[in-house]
Amino acid sequence: MEENSNKAKMHSPISERMGFVALMILQIILFMLFAVFVRYGKAALPAEVPGLFQEHVSKYPHFQDVHVMIFVGFGFLMTFLKKYGYSATGYTLFMSALIIQWTILVKGFFHMYDGKIELSLEHIIHSDISAAVPLISMGVLLGRTTPIQLLFMALFEIILFAVNEYVALEILSICDVGGSITVHAFGAYFGLAVSLMLRPKKEENEPGQYEAPTYTSDLFAMIGTLFLWIYWPSFNSVLADGTAQERAILNTYLSLAGATVTAFVLSTMMSHEKKLDMVHVQNSTLAGGVAVGTVCNLMIGGHGAILIGILAGSLSVIGYRYVTPAMTAKLRLHDTCGVHNLHGMPGIIAGLGSIVYAYLATKEDYKYDLGAIFPAMASQPKNLTSNHIIGGYERSARAQAGFQLFGLFMTIIIAIVGGLIVGLVLRCTCFRKLQKEEQHQDELYWEVPELKSE
Amino acid sequence: MEENSNKAKMHSPISERMGFVALMILQIILFMLFAVFVRYGKAALPAEVPGLFQEHVSKYPHFQDVHVMIFVGFGFLMTFLKKYGYSATGYTLFMSALIIQWTILVKGFFHMYDGKIELSLEHIIHSDISAAVPLISMGVLLGRTTPIQLLFMALFEIILFAVNEYVALEILSICDVGGSITVHAFGAYFGLAVSLMLRPKKEENEPGQYEAPTYTSDLFAMIGTLFLWIYWPSFNSVLADGTAQERAILNTYLSLAGATVTAFVLSTMMSHEKKLDMVHVQNSTLAGGVAVGTVCNLMIGGHGAILIGILAGSLSVIGYRYVTPAMTAKLRLHDTCGVHNLHGMPGIIAGLGSIVYAYLATKEDYKYDLGAIFPAMASQPKNLTSNHIIGGYERSARAQAGFQLFGLFMTIIIAIVGGLIVGLVLRCTCFRKLQKEEQHQDELYWEVPELKSE
Amino acid sequence: MEENSNKAKMHSPISERMGFVALMILQIILFMLFAVFVRYGKAALPAEVPGLFQEHVSKYPHFQDVHVMIFVGFGFLMTFLKKYGYSATGYTLFMSALIIQWTILVKGFFHMYDGKIELSLEHIIHSDISAAVPLISMGVLLGRTTPIQLLFMALFEIILFAVNEYVALEILSICDVGGSITVHAFGAYFGLAVSLMLRPKKEENEPGQYEAPTYTSDLFAMIGTLFLWIYWPSFNSVLADGTAQERAILNTYLSLAGATVTAFVLSTMMSHEKKLDMVHVQNSTLAGGVAVGTVCNLMIGGHGAILIGILAGSLSVIGYRYVTPAMTAKLRLHDTCGVHNLHGMPGIIAGLGSIVYAYLATKEDYKYDLGAIFPAMASQPKNLTSNHIIGGYERSARAQAGFQLFGLFMTIIIAIVGGLIVGLVLRCTCFRKLQKEEQHQDELYWEVPELKSE
Repeated sequence: MEENSNKAKMHSPISERMGFVALMILQIILFMLFAVFVRYGKAALPAEVPGLFQEHVSKYPHFQDVHVMIFVGFGFLMTFLKKYGYSATGYTLFMSALIIQWTILVKGFFHMYDGKIELSLEHIIHSDISAAVPLISMGVLLGRTTPIQLLFMALFEIILFAVNEYVALEILSICDVGGSITVHAFGAYFGLAVSLMLRPKKEENEPGQYEAPTYTSDLFAMIGTLFLWIYWPSFNSVLADGTAQERAILNTYLSLAGATVTAFVLSTMMSHEKKLDMVHVQNSTLAGGVAVGTVCNLMIGGHGAILIGILAGSLSVIGYRYVTPAMTAKLRLHDTCGVHNLHGMPGIIAGLGSIVYAYLATKEDYKYDLGAIFPAMASQPKNLTSNHIIGGYERSARAQAGFQLFGLFMTIIIAIVGGLIVGLVLRCTCFRKLQKEEQHQDELYWEVPELKSE
Repeated sequence: MEENSNKAKMHSPISERMGFVALMILQIILFMLFAVFVRYGKAALPAEVPGLFQEHVSKYPHFQDVHVMIFVGFGFLMTFLKKYGYSATGYTLFMSALIIQWTILVKGFFHMYDGKIELSLEHIIHSDISAAVPLISMGVLLGRTTPIQLLFMALFEIILFAVNEYVALEILSICDVGGSITVHAFGAYFGLAVSLMLRPKKEENEPGQYEAPTYTSDLFAMIGTLFLWIYWPSFNSVLADGTAQERAILNTYLSLAGATVTAFVLSTMMSHEKKLDMVHVQNSTLAGGVAVGTVCNLMIGGHGAILIGILAGSLSVIGYRYVTPAMTAKLRLHDTCGVHNLHGMPGIIAGLGSIVYAYLATKEDYKYDLGAIFPAMASQPKNLTSNHIIGGYERSARAQAGFQLFGLFMTIIIAIVGGLIVGLVLRCTCFRKLQKEEQHQDELYWEVPELKSE
Repeated sequence: MEENSNKAKMHSPISERMGFVALMILQIILFMLFAVFVRYGKAALPAEVPGLFQEHVSKYPHFQDVHVMIFVGFGFLMTFLKKYGYSATGYTLFMSALIIQWTILVKGFFHMYDGKIELSLEHIIHSDISAAVPLISMGVLLGRTTPIQLLFMALFEIILFAVNEYVALEILSICDVGGSITVHAFGAYFGLAVSLMLRPKKEENEPGQYEAPTYTSDLFAMIGTLFLWIYWPSFNSVLADGTAQERAILNTYLSLAGATVTAFVLSTMMSHEKKLDMVHVQNSTLAGGVAVGTVCNLMIGGHGAILIGILAGSLSVIGYRYVTPAMTAKLRLHDTCGVHNLHGMPGIIAGLGSIVYAYLATKEDYKYDLGAIFPAMASQPKNLTSNHIIGGYERSARAQAGFQLFGLFMTIIIAIVGGLIVGLVLRCTCFRKLQKEEQHQDELYWEVPELKSE
């Protein structure tokens, strides 16, 4: 009987069907917008003579590392729930496939030439990085939204993300090579704000019946963790060049190592049974990659990277153990993957770190790299994508530190306000909402094999 | 009792043992053929001075991406059956390890210097691409052949593939940079023809008892899907150079994205329960990579790539929903992985697309790349691997379009005829054939842990 | 009742807690040592002008391949035990994260400039390769030690490894580009020696109750196998350059292929049920990568590589079938992953092969590469990292062969003696030791979901 009534509920209402139709129409509109606005960039245009665009192609292996992180890394990291593996990997693929097209247009509109977006490898690198933003927010909401809600959120979020990033990087001219402020903190606080608007009624604040891992689902999640861990140095260094790229690789590598040792040790000290907790192993080990992201191309030294890793790993485990449960209990603010502990707080560490290191930056230490990393501190504009930098050039280190602080705050505020608005819209009646018992399971939207067949 | 009789049947007959012995002898013969015919090419030979063969080494990351696709991508994509995961990953490894050696010789015989094959990175790139051909055919037959049958098929198929590819690319001089015609369509129709010859008796036309996934096996299959999806731009661009390589990357990326959004949406519209179907998610999302393969280095524009993706994703889902069941019911033509919908029809889309774009190709648009992409349309031969091109050089765009059409037809016909012959041989008494109840399970050829131990 | 008493035992004693605290302190000490001794190397230091350090950055894709092998490859290869998947992936990550920091210091102390270690991409390549050493030893001991014992072992093992490697490569000047002698054989025999010291009492020599795979755990292990198989050419070639790097890639590829075909065929002949055995498929297929490691950059020819693969695949299957069971039965020497058959004996094949090929090496064949591969055979020192080579330069091929033999013996003896000493220390009372019934299961150190929830 209960099975039957359950089945009945499973059928998507008409409005859901319309949502999917709308997505198909959007895909066709994307095709048309590409036809009108997008052309191949120089590196993809045939030349009179055999041309070598090595500067582009040489970033291709880096791009592929990031590509693995987005689709395998994020996808499998979220398979830890016992009945939500199809959704975790599937929605990651679905949403990202839509968002990478969307992002080429949205971010492209900020840098058009003669009214056209000139497509190049750089665009798809940026698209993949941008896809991380709604994936991070999805981690907060995992299992508590419909795919239609997720995709709506993602489309809006990307616009806001692109605007914020443009202001932060090209007008405020802050440094954020690994995107810890503009990608990680933004995605985390945006998702948390959405989650706050979708918070359950008081009587439904308990964890869902399917909100737990199995032994097998935890191992699938480790596939995600390990590929994220392995390729994080590529994520943080893909937009850097020359010696700054080498530093970004080395520092990210060391910060992750420091965070990992710390997360394992603290997990045995702090977890409920004083044993290793897979949640910490799967997530807090990665916090070092986020926390070093903004400063990984700076002169922080290997020891600086390790210290940042130790701090991030510690804060992340503490967050999982104390902060997330408190948010759930007190604010009814659910965060399924603990994104606040992996992307939120470590993103803030990254931002605070960038204030310190910007304050310490000198021409003597950074030589040529000063202008490449802090364009506003350069004595003259060169190779810059923007000439809207506030206050022009020759900014002092102290002023740069101030701008880093302002950029961090602005990002978090825009993310929270944007998330609250989107969350409000997602609560409106035009969207199907999941009942408590429908959450954290694939069956509502997926054909799932009979359990007997396992 | 049934268990016992089952066990009895499980023992391989003498002829099976002989098959494995023959494979060992073949491996030793391969060693001897390498000793006689294979030498290091220039890039692997010590030089008088420190030599930099960057043009080769620079393709190594591309090669490794393809390498992951063959062994992890294909291997895990086929793990979706509940009791055939050892075979899916294992036979992929076994067959490919044999075939990559075999291909170096078979394809090498077409390009010998002084009676020797000059081994280089290019050979192993081609070997890996060629290994995809029998793997695609294996997807059709998955679970319905013995490993001996599979390997026999693969050895013969590679010879036919190499001949067809040589004629298509070097004599007809058609374009097919991503191999959608010569690799995907060939492998698909070859496998389908074999499957037709091995079709079950009318009374055994029902799906096998193990021909279904479990929740866990579907997640393993997603590992395959995602790595194929991620690295497909490398597969399609590995043989391209310069700006054509950049286009191949961008177009494949966009086509996959378009196919993915389309496949997800159509899956919710067309599947039996009007929910997402993992079969579509695992396979139809990839159809965009196949369908753009032949034209990905052409001037199709980002919108052209997205359109091809939308078409391929649609056709693939329709194929899974209607075409494959009809072939099974009407022709008793089984296609375990639905290869026709992932490699067959999308391969034909690729071929048809290449006719259109070849017809539109002009020297003004393609500049230097014209001769690199369509060697027969060049005004003079340069950097070409073959001088057997039919009709010599300065071929018109219209003629090139005709050759593309002819190449597509020829490939499909050779594949089907070859497959029928090989299928006929596989039916002969010298090969052990699987009984209905022996199909789609590892136990016949693998030591499998007791179920109790799970 | 039994459950309860089991639970009681699960709580870590005080000394265990102290072990984790010690690791945290060690992590902080590592931070301080980095602050004092480590500086960025030239390639990571800002330059006056935009600098291109392509020679370094060009190795980054190679590095990432090795990185995948260490963390995903080794981690998942060891997930084959039914209840030890958290530990396999988790301890791989934990131990390697600690060891990569440790190795930068330990190996760095051999090459300091003005009392400083100059950090570069090369260091993290070497760190990752070095992390393989304790991971190999961990494979021997898998499930029979505590994490504290493992990490203690690893810290000591790295010191001994670094000393042995320094003597072998820079003083004896032997060739070992893929580390088959200094990494694989060393790690294997070190681990076996530790295992001998930790051998069980006679009455407990039976296999543990959890020392078996499930269907699912075997598929997880295949993830490890396939990524190791795929990226092994990168492991063996990452330290080679120019044409030697191309040879290393080609030879490793072919040796793996030969070993794989051989391992599959022999598995069907030798395994208990005369069927394919996942242990052979997961491990013996990789033996070709180890066995060719030392000689893969030499002029062994494609056929030489295939022959080495055939030998290694055969010996490895024979080892799993006969040698390991005999060691277990007669010596009570347990080797959970059969490391002796994958890294031990194939490492010896590699060493013996290097004797033969060194003996055959001539200036005519090797030209410029002679000095790069066998620095002691060069007529004058150039681009060398060491000037401590015994006997100076212009060493004869015969002498080089003798040094290869000596280096192989020395490595094995140092590994065994070191392993015996460490094993002795691990037996001492300050370390918690696992009871028979606590072995091969995660539950003692990990929070594991209730089985019911599966």
